[in-house]
Amino acid sequence: ELQMHLEEIEKGGYDHFMLKEIFEQPRSIRDTLRGRLLPDEGIISMSGVKEYGAKFENASRILFVACGTSWHAGLVAEYMFEEFARIPVEVEYASEFRYRNPIITEDDVVIAISQSGETADTLAAIELAKKKGATIFGICNVVGSSIARASHAGAYTHAGPEIGVASTKAFTAQVAVLALIALEIGRRKGALTESRFRSLISELDQIPKKVEQMLESEDMTVSIAEMYKDVSNFLYLGRGYNFPVALEGALKLKEISYIHAEGYPAAEMKHGPIALIDENMPVVVIATKNGQYEKVVSNIQEIKARNGKIIAVVNEGDETIREMADHVIEIPDTDEAFTPLITTIPLQLLSYHIAVMRGCNVDQPRNLAKSVTVE
Amino acid sequence: ELQMHLEEIEKGGYDHFMLKEIFEQPRSIRDTLRGRLLPDEGIISMSGVKEYGAKFENASRILFVACGTSWHAGLVAEYMFEEFARIPVEVEYASEFRYRNPIITEDDVVIAISQSGETADTLAAIELAKKKGATIFGICNVVGSSIARASHAGAYTHAGPEIGVASTKAFTAQVAVLALIALEIGRRKGALTESRFRSLISELDQIPKKVEQMLESEDMTVSIAEMYKDVSNFLYLGRGYNFPVALEGALKLKEISYIHAEGYPAAEMKHGPIALIDENMPVVVIATKNGQYEKVVSNIQEIKARNGKIIAVVNEGDETIREMADHVIEIPDTDEAFTPLITTIPLQLLSYHIAVMRGCNVDQPRNLAKSVTVE
Repeated sequence: ELQMHLEEIEKGGYDHFMLKEIFEQPRSIRDTLRGRLLPDEGIISMSGVKEYGAKFENASRILFVACGTSWHAGLVAEYMFEEFARIPVEVEYASEFRYRNPIITEDDVVIAISQSGETADTLAAIELAKKKGATIFGICNVVGSSIARASHAGAYTHAGPEIGVASTKAFTAQVAVLALIALEIGRRKGALTESRFRSLISELDQIPKKVEQMLESEDMTVSIAEMYKDVSNFLYLGRGYNFPVALEGALKLKEISYIHAEGYPAAEMKHGPIALIDENMPVVVIATKNGQYEKVVSNIQEIKARNGKIIAVVNEGDETIREMADHVIEIPDTDEAFTPLITTIPLQLLSYHIAVMRGCNVDQPRNLAKSVTVE
Repeated sequence: ELQMHLEEIEKGGYDHFMLKEIFEQPRSIRDTLRGRLLPDEGIISMSGVKEYGAKFENASRILFVACGTSWHAGLVAEYMFEEFARIPVEVEYASEFRYRNPIITEDDVVIAISQSGETADTLAAIELAKKKGATIFGICNVVGSSIARASHAGAYTHAGPEIGVASTKAFTAQVAVLALIALEIGRRKGALTESRFRSLISELDQIPKKVEQMLESEDMTVSIAEMYKDVSNFLYLGRGYNFPVALEGALKLKEISYIHAEGYPAAEMKHGPIALIDENMPVVVIATKNGQYEKVVSNIQEIKARNGKIIAVVNEGDETIREMADHVIEIPDTDEAFTPLITTIPLQLLSYHIAVMRGCNVDQPRNLAKSVTVE
């Protein structure tokens, strides 16, 4: 009983740890940026990046190794590192990477991402890369964890303890810290102009506030959850920076509601998944305004023509998609690179509310462990 | 009526083009290898590879751009090029690649894969890479197609016309021709010893015969299809060379049966998808004997512990998995790198028979076009 009581206190008035952790994100992202992002001075200060700056700047490529949600953070970072730092990036499943005799040189930087810092496959992957001479940079949430210790350098996410098995605040903290690194390397390499760098860091500094604003979409996600809680399948589509968000949104729904949800890059839909679309298939489309906006609009039209249901995540004031979609969730404007930090919020809330309505144990979903320490 | 009659003749006694094309694979793979793979002389002879040999040998990396099934062929090739030629490879969705200002240099070789040679996103991707100075190598089935013409060099798959919308023989022909290229580059670079090269090409030469043998599994796939034809979801798991086969198997089922099937690298299951497993979820596991066999066995145990149904594709005589799995399909032994050409066959047959039993139009699935010529 005491245990129960303590747990209630720890949940801070929320029904579940997961919901508490979703709502903590303005603070956990802020904590992750604090002391590193200094917009008034126009600088990013990170000791690990400073120490290994030359390694990053001269890297022939950067390899991300991770599993699950952390792998999705790596995919977002791929776009950031390529855009900001102009370094070729590859993102690998740690489990696949380590078994295929990967081609690694001393000019490679390997970034390992793991909330717990104990993910067995990721740990084994960096041990292998280290033997081949690569520089290992660890992104962990748990201080002093095995991956943190096995890395040459690194940066902690300051998300605080994450209790819910389905990762939420650890994911956004990972994306935030990776944004810092990509921006700083881009500045050091000269791939970003000083003015672009300054404008990006000011924008990044606004993200916690915008995440807070995004949390106000909860009521909307509750009403969408009520309509779709009984379906057996979901698709999630996104492009560019929001393709990994589609994957992560689908994974979240899978993990806690046991609905078979799958993420896809939107343009791939025509190469197969569109055959699944009928009136029983809700499709979450992240359709922020960017270079591919028109293409995503045409994907939405194709889905509507086949009677699919559209839940669209769009920019404020997007009337085009509002007219086509069944449900619309608006996000505050920001630089495209930082949209994943915002678009992911309503998808977390949607998964959470669907799972609760289905009577699932959201904090401890069946079959899953918080930290996968077996290979 | 004449049209119908002609179509019947063209189907050559098969109920559908797709089935005819599945059964043509021993011949289409043989046709793709013919004149190129010369095991008696111990050589591979390909004019495009010869002409651009130095480009390949000196490539800082190889980028595959493709969509759909062709993208899966690229993923198989990634493993082959890294193993045989020791060149770092990245596989990109053409639609994502072209919009993200990719980092391309004159030292990169871009291999575009497209059955029709008209896939709009892939064509646009290579035009972009060409402008940035990369060497473009095209793998197409249709002679004189746009992608073939836009490439500096290339190699045709000689699969013959593919009528079924869901690609089968074009996929295996792509994998076969990519195997030839990877082997030849590996030999030229000295990454493969002469004896290993000779033993691999002898083994590749045996593949059409083994595919023929594999087609005898049809009866088994019919009985499995009867048991699972009414489910709404499927998972496909594989590792290494057979991870892309899992993706391709799932795509095939999606495309023609409208069952929501999803492929995953087996080790990622613990990071989320295992939450989906219950007695209603059939899981196809490609569990050939390789470096990760023990790990896949433990994945199978985890699935069985949660009452999932296992359809396992295993090596001949595998008694371990036979005792655990609900259904077992045995494949003839070959080098691990060539197993995708064999393991993919029973998955094609399984999709086909499930779709036929569900009354689907397998040759022209709803919503899909044979060649995606819009972006």
